[in-house]
Amino acid sequence: MKLSDLGENRVVAALTRALALGADVRVGAGDDCAVIGRPRDARWQLLKTDAVIEGVHFLPDADPRRIGWKALCRALSDIAAMGGTPQHALITLAAPPSTDFARVRGIYAGLRKAARRFGVSIVGGETARSPGPLFLNVALTGTVERTRCILRSGGRAGDALYVTGHLGGSLAGRHLDFIPCLAEARWLTANFKIHAMMDLSDGLAADLPRLATASRCGFTLDESLLPKTKGCTPAQALADGEDYELLFALAPRAAAALEVAWKQHFPSLALTRIGSLITQSKTKNRQSKTPDGHDHFRQR
Amino acid sequence: MKLSDLGENRVVAALTRALALGADVRVGAGDDCAVIGRPRDARWQLLKTDAVIEGVHFLPDADPRRIGWKALCRALSDIAAMGGTPQHALITLAAPPSTDFARVRGIYAGLRKAARRFGVSIVGGETARSPGPLFLNVALTGTVERTRCILRSGGRAGDALYVTGHLGGSLAGRHLDFIPCLAEARWLTANFKIHAMMDLSDGLAADLPRLATASRCGFTLDESLLPKTKGCTPAQALADGEDYELLFALAPRAAAALEVAWKQHFPSLALTRIGSLITQSKTKNRQSKTPDGHDHFRQR
Repeated sequence: MKLSDLGENRVVAALTRALALGADVRVGAGDDCAVIGRPRDARWQLLKTDAVIEGVHFLPDADPRRIGWKALCRALSDIAAMGGTPQHALITLAAPPSTDFARVRGIYAGLRKAARRFGVSIVGGETARSPGPLFLNVALTGTVERTRCILRSGGRAGDALYVTGHLGGSLAGRHLDFIPCLAEARWLTANFKIHAMMDLSDGLAADLPRLATASRCGFTLDESLLPKTKGCTPAQALADGEDYELLFALAPRAAAALEVAWKQHFPSLALTRIGSLITQSKTKNRQSKTPDGHDHFRQR
Repeated sequence: MKLSDLGENRVVAALTRALALGADVRVGAGDDCAVIGRPRDARWQLLKTDAVIEGVHFLPDADPRRIGWKALCRALSDIAAMGGTPQHALITLAAPPSTDFARVRGIYAGLRKAARRFGVSIVGGETARSPGPLFLNVALTGTVERTRCILRSGGRAGDALYVTGHLGGSLAGRHLDFIPCLAEARWLTANFKIHAMMDLSDGLAADLPRLATASRCGFTLDESLLPKTKGCTPAQALADGEDYELLFALAPRAAAALEVAWKQHFPSLALTRIGSLITQSKTKNRQSKTPDGHDHFRQR
């Protein structure tokens, strides 16, 4: 059985099922970040690892600074999705010995630029030889107040579902330049009771079912409301991936106040109510119409 | 200028020179682990990232369980080198979609085996598609009492230099099965004032100068004393790499007591005094005779 036969969700589920976790692990594999701390600690630690790979996440001729920016910002987007603040990063760079040093220096310049902007210290890393494509892995720590730590699993039937920004078409360029929604997520958790949140990396069609399943809910999605990037079809907005926007759920009674306050604080970033969480039994009828989103082991 | 022209030490030095660090970073890039915490905290956090790559750190036909074991144990060896205790790991696995799932499951079985043995929780990770070789990155956290955190930089002129175990020939098999020296390092810091410590991953010839330089010392090395793996030449013991033994420095007046106590506690693991740290001005004469050790960007 090949990885491509199983698909990413089943591979990850099979690999992470048998993991034994210490008593200080609040959340292991399966959310945007791992969460470490004792149940009553005032703050918890967030841990994340994420890689970008030449030929998969960027093309060989991409601007090295934008590669570095993207690599760190992808992990930052996951810290944002937990409601956290990033702290320390470790970089693994594997490159062929024939790589021009200027390219590697450019990647590090992009990493440093993102680190500076979002208050991250790059505290180490490692370099290795790659016999194939360039690999760039970021391991990132963060911190979050226990009461503001938002999981994927906290959604409730009836919750309103929102996405930030516009979806689709990221591969035309935005995937190398996006701004992780750290400020937006911090503002959300400071001002509203967010039940569940995640960042959109594999496309709403892949990611929304993950949030709903983690919350033991189904969902409704009104495709006519999707905030599509200009020029994108609904199918692209659902399945392209690499949006790095936030998807979150909160009680519908908070929706009106949220929409008013959001417009004041983030006038240039769209916020769109796209559907609802519903009780799980209703799910299976609704979900089947959406396309699949990105699966790392199933090439399209 | 290619990476192979510069060599690993200069590439790393150039990339890490300009990194801005937060006030809570005790040690950034350049030691076995990064060290995080306030100056007077009772405990500090250790952070490490490390990758193994198909065709570089293991062959395509290597037993998957041993690949997983090696990947985690390499990072554990760095936690040991700081005197620390490991805590949480995150795994990044990039593999071609055509990879047999049994292989990936075997790698995870090896990771889990090492995690169980050394008290690590695997709290997450990520899977991605690789268009080239299999790539396995481990990000690992640990903890260490501030007073028992041992850097590379604490060595003093006159210190005795010791290595554990035997050196050389690891690629014949041991590099996939080695036991990281966590227990030995914890015992050393509990019972002796260790001035400087690191693990030997690139060969004594590459690693000893790093410890000496970090300690602003030179060194003497008596090659006739080298604890060579059976069948290895002195050059192999110096330069093969992947030994994952400890190299450490302590005051010569503690040497006799150390050697007696070590034999009682670790009767099956050699401990060998191989030389001394000396004042830096004397270095340049002595160092030139040793071979080079492993450089990741210069293929031999």
